[in-house]
Amino acid sequence: MVQSIAIAGNSGPRVRSDCEITLEMKERGGINIDLTSKVKTLYGESIRSLTIEILEFFGIKNASVKIIDSGALPFVLAARLESVIKQLIDTDLEYLQELIIENTGSTTRNRYRFSRLYLPGNTPGLMINAGLHSADGIILDLEDSVAPEKKDEARILVRNALRQVNYYGAERMVRINQGDRGLEDLRFVIPHNVNLVLIPKCESTNYIKRVEEEIYNIKKEQSLSLNLNLNLNLNLIPVFLMPIIETALGVENSFEIARASKDVVAMAIGLEDYTADLGVQRTSEGKESFYARTRIVVAAKAAGIQPIDSVFSDVGDMDSLKQNVQASKALGFEGMGCIHPRQIPVIQNGFAPDEREIEKSKKIILAFEKAKRQGLGVVALGTKMIDLPVVAHANRIIERAIRLKLLYPDWIDTFREED
Amino acid sequence: MVQSIAIAGNSGPRVRSDCEITLEMKERGGINIDLTSKVKTLYGESIRSLTIEILEFFGIKNASVKIIDSGALPFVLAARLESVIKQLIDTDLEYLQELIIENTGSTTRNRYRFSRLYLPGNTPGLMINAGLHSADGIILDLEDSVAPEKKDEARILVRNALRQVNYYGAERMVRINQGDRGLEDLRFVIPHNVNLVLIPKCESTNYIKRVEEEIYNIKKEQSLSLNLNLNLNLNLIPVFLMPIIETALGVENSFEIARASKDVVAMAIGLEDYTADLGVQRTSEGKESFYARTRIVVAAKAAGIQPIDSVFSDVGDMDSLKQNVQASKALGFEGMGCIHPRQIPVIQNGFAPDEREIEKSKKIILAFEKAKRQGLGVVALGTKMIDLPVVAHANRIIERAIRLKLLYPDWIDTFREED
Amino acid sequence: MVQSIAIAGNSGPRVRSDCEITLEMKERGGINIDLTSKVKTLYGESIRSLTIEILEFFGIKNASVKIIDSGALPFVLAARLESVIKQLIDTDLEYLQELIIENTGSTTRNRYRFSRLYLPGNTPGLMINAGLHSADGIILDLEDSVAPEKKDEARILVRNALRQVNYYGAERMVRINQGDRGLEDLRFVIPHNVNLVLIPKCESTNYIKRVEEEIYNIKKEQSLSLNLNLNLNLNLIPVFLMPIIETALGVENSFEIARASKDVVAMAIGLEDYTADLGVQRTSEGKESFYARTRIVVAAKAAGIQPIDSVFSDVGDMDSLKQNVQASKALGFEGMGCIHPRQIPVIQNGFAPDEREIEKSKKIILAFEKAKRQGLGVVALGTKMIDLPVVAHANRIIERAIRLKLLYPDWIDTFREED
Repeated sequence: MVQSIAIAGNSGPRVRSDCEITLEMKERGGINIDLTSKVKTLYGESIRSLTIEILEFFGIKNASVKIIDSGALPFVLAARLESVIKQLIDTDLEYLQELIIENTGSTTRNRYRFSRLYLPGNTPGLMINAGLHSADGIILDLEDSVAPEKKDEARILVRNALRQVNYYGAERMVRINQGDRGLEDLRFVIPHNVNLVLIPKCESTNYIKRVEEEIYNIKKEQSLSLNLNLNLNLNLIPVFLMPIIETALGVENSFEIARASKDVVAMAIGLEDYTADLGVQRTSEGKESFYARTRIVVAAKAAGIQPIDSVFSDVGDMDSLKQNVQASKALGFEGMGCIHPRQIPVIQNGFAPDEREIEKSKKIILAFEKAKRQGLGVVALGTKMIDLPVVAHANRIIERAIRLKLLYPDWIDTFREED
Repeated sequence: MVQSIAIAGNSGPRVRSDCEITLEMKERGGINIDLTSKVKTLYGESIRSLTIEILEFFGIKNASVKIIDSGALPFVLAARLESVIKQLIDTDLEYLQELIIENTGSTTRNRYRFSRLYLPGNTPGLMINAGLHSADGIILDLEDSVAPEKKDEARILVRNALRQVNYYGAERMVRINQGDRGLEDLRFVIPHNVNLVLIPKCESTNYIKRVEEEIYNIKKEQSLSLNLNLNLNLNLIPVFLMPIIETALGVENSFEIARASKDVVAMAIGLEDYTADLGVQRTSEGKESFYARTRIVVAAKAAGIQPIDSVFSDVGDMDSLKQNVQASKALGFEGMGCIHPRQIPVIQNGFAPDEREIEKSKKIILAFEKAKRQGLGVVALGTKMIDLPVVAHANRIIERAIRLKLLYPDWIDTFREED
Repeated sequence: MVQSIAIAGNSGPRVRSDCEITLEMKERGGINIDLTSKVKTLYGESIRSLTIEILEFFGIKNASVKIIDSGALPFVLAARLESVIKQLIDTDLEYLQELIIENTGSTTRNRYRFSRLYLPGNTPGLMINAGLHSADGIILDLEDSVAPEKKDEARILVRNALRQVNYYGAERMVRINQGDRGLEDLRFVIPHNVNLVLIPKCESTNYIKRVEEEIYNIKKEQSLSLNLNLNLNLNLIPVFLMPIIETALGVENSFEIARASKDVVAMAIGLEDYTADLGVQRTSEGKESFYARTRIVVAAKAAGIQPIDSVFSDVGDMDSLKQNVQASKALGFEGMGCIHPRQIPVIQNGFAPDEREIEKSKKIILAFEKAKRQGLGVVALGTKMIDLPVVAHANRIIERAIRLKLLYPDWIDTFREED
């Protein structure tokens, strides 16, 4: 017997911006919608009409739909409805909403990734205003924060969020699942202009290659089909990769992983899983992971990518977080995951360039400008030659310092006069 | 001129359970035995008859035998006698005593190896009751604890001990010598159901391969010849390998060594030799070996085998040993060698699963049981999926906790009711 | 228009043992020399005649030469003059002075390299008495201590110094530049019996191979041409290599680099550049470089070469230097660069063998001597076998101890009697 009733989404007193939908397929009788919502007066009609539109899109003519709404936005309603439909009928159709203009941008390989906020991939309430916290990146997580039985519906919600949620300039990231499920997850994120994919429990270059190949295939298929609702050539937009090292085997292969693909731009360590793999307790001193952390910094830097430290679990202890960030930066890490918005400013400021770095960067840029003015082929600071990547790095530091108001945008003019 | 007189074994006021035998080959006159022993009245006759039996076995008809006995058991007397005989005549014969039923067992890849007691391979007095100390393993050492001129006789003694000494359930291990001599040592231990071979100063996968091949060859020959005195199919019984890393080169190749053979189940570090190779002094803080130790933990875990820490030399200082074990476990080591029986309980308890590990293991096992009862394909703890190796590991922790009386054997029943 | 005027060398109130030469090529009028020198009365004539000799050697008949002399020795004057000439005319000729007898020696692979003094390659004032400080090695630096626009003239000065400066037994080293310029530098040092070449910012075995090949080619060409002014067969004299690891990529490849060529005898780490590559601040505690330093020690020892630590920058703080050296030796380093002569004795004494090492070496040598006297094939200390590299190492320790007057040269005789 074919299943004829399905449920998706969440409801309950603590649920916000979500809805729970129960769909029952019928032989006849048309569409019946039973809507419970505090905002029924205001949005009842638009909820009903979107529901009908989506059911029609999937060719459903007779069904009873029960919606318990807790303030779901259209992208959430659409995701939940598509989820229940796909539990009952087999279809390749996708009900895609507009990719908003703010989400059509691409990011660059070397942009800073000091902080990135983890959001559970099936909790829309946390997604809507996440961009306001000014993290460098926002991660929609399909892995550990989503219960196994919710993984399918999370994919559709994340897909819709990538198209509809304004990230206010944060890099738009998704953490896929491990193994084969992770590769399947890609079909739900790659066509929707995700900027960066996090690869959890990465242990081999082979898996990176498989991810890379799958992304290539998806893009290729996509470019043959109708190209979204924008003239966005996905083949020209990079999807960056950030493997997360969470096992001893991952540590052993970290250098190879870091350079497994030109799209790998950063490599993170996940200490909760890493210490579990080692069978040790995670301590604040961190002797048990010192080797792994320092090795990952070196592996990442050797491959020319950013080393990213593990999240700090105690969201209540800001002082310890601050010390943790300082220690992390002192070892060479260039960022850290956040599991609560309040961690973001501490992490952003902690990894920000310090006085010493800003001063050195100024000197490098000034030396470079001077050499250019004098038509010299070689740039030197004192007796030391300076090559172009060093100049580029100095420029990034100065840009960030200006953004963080640690430096006036016109700082260079003052110096030019003195020169 | 062919040598006609030989000596083997030990005598003297501090020697126990050993004997010194001097054999002189004669042209005529039959067998003359000159026995000195405190237990002559009780055992004189059996010593004489065993001596005559062995001489006959090797076809010796005329000889003078001088035995200074200090309470040698038959396996020791037989070993010493075979040693003097083989110094004088060239023979492939081996006088093999019964392989006692307790020594016919095999062990498993993942069993705990918290403690293993080193015994000098040519000192029978220490072997006889070694099994009573409940170490996870007992090592008969042919390498550093045996003087060069005693190495040949130690092989025969170790061979006999493997057949005759009751280990009371401890894993039966032998440390072979380095290089070619180590490969030759294998002929003396592999046919006698050794459970695990320690490979000292291991520096390359190549040597592991040679050991593996030699073991394979010995087993093959053995299975063609009369199969001991038991129906023991050696080809079905694994001989596990534990390479010991004792040099910088070994550290460099540690990951490759750890996975050089499916029979490698653990990898140890030997700090006395390692610090000597580095030309540094071994300190209690251990900064000089921190890199090597943490790297070996990661290499071993990445290869799915047990990382084993170095022995602690000061057998009088139990407090420092205890701290040492705690620090060792905190880094991920799963065991440590012992050079004195009194170290065993400290090491056993130190590496034993702690409260936190036991609690976590319970949760994992309960989640697994529940998922099985509910017919779920996926096991999860919270939102986190749990795979089978994690369940197996939890089971090992629970078993050890029960064995150490840290947990009641029926703990699970209490929980099932609550469920 | 072809350039007709050139300048080389240094002048000014703080310049010693150098000269600044301005050469202007003329159509006619012969050679005009304008010499300013405090030692004009004493050396004016010899300066003039050397100048004329060199101009003639390069076929220059009409020129105006302005020399501001600050006490330049002939090898400096010759270098400066050749530098200005080569800026104006294109020639493969080299004006080579005598290779003094003290500089015709070779060194050995395993000799101690506790201290090596860095000298800027274009500052002759520091070169002349550098050998008096008894460093194990003296480095003429063509890389970071020479400004880009001075690099060409530094090569010629270093070449002349290799031939003419007495190093009083110090190993004669040159640090070449990075990349292709470094390979070109070799033509200026290899034919002049340099003992060891330092390769800065080494990141790959490939570059070592290129250096090795270039050295081979230079030696081959050299052996075909007139062989200097001595019967020195360069092909028989090794040029040792010391790569310097200064980046994360160098650390990742350090083991491969250490064994990339049989001529690599030591590997150093340069922490100023390394911490810059990691983007971290160098601290006195050194947590940020602990992984890299310990990894390099292991990589070097695994390859059988000497690990050398970074220079200590604060030339005024002798106490911290001393602690630094102790910590460095405790980790296994066997030497350290010096940037000031006063650092040399602290470093020499700090790395010198200590009481424990000397005692152990004595025992090893005595055991070896005894085994030799007794005609034994195997040397043992206690039950532990000793192989020949261990004996050789003990001999080196004893030699150094005697040189540092920590041991009487005839120590062994006392023991032999006791034996």
